[in-house]
Amino acid sequence: MSQSDKERKRITVEIYNRSYTIVGQEEPHHIRMVSNLVDQKMREIHESNPALDVSKLAVLTAVNTMNEYIKLKEECAELINYIEKIEKEDDD
Amino acid sequence: MSQSDKERKRITVEIYNRSYTIVGQEEPHHIRMVSNLVDQKMREIHESNPALDVSKLAVLTAVNTMNEYIKLKEECAELINYIEKIEKEDDD
Repeated sequence: MSQSDKERKRITVEIYNRSYTIVGQEEPHHIRMVSNLVDQKMREIHESNPALDVSKLAVLTAVNTMNEYIKLKEECAELINYIEKIEKEDDD
Repeated sequence: MSQSDKERKRITVEIYNRSYTIVGQEEPHHIRMVSNLVDQKMREIHESNPALDVSKLAVLTAVNTMNEYIKLKEECAELINYIEKIEKEDDD
């Protein structure tokens, strides 16, 4: 087993009543937390759209999460701009 | 139509060969960009896991995106801490 193989962890989680084996470098507790958030979001979207099948529900969950990711990325970029601005002022 | 109804936009997008009607306050071009990112990520995950059915593929796409969202949220929190620290130093 190579060093990089050793670093890859394999964990099984349950999301919306199905099992998934996730392989990655993240810690198991982190993967479980992320999976619980996805499960929770799928159930929330199901509450407001009970007619959706599981794959549509999962795609809309992904769209929803991606939307929040993009908005957060913009917020992060603004924070970085702000830091650069105040660091430049400190230098002057 | 109330003010809040007026602000809600309805747009149809195609993700992984299926149509979705998305209702929300975001601009259509933003929803299209987010949907394209989800479509792209589903195709990437399919490339490395061709045996997955669409709903598993979509759930793993959501997990993947949620993981990146959580990591970005941590980075954002660090930036905020850093800003608070330098602003406090400026006050002293």
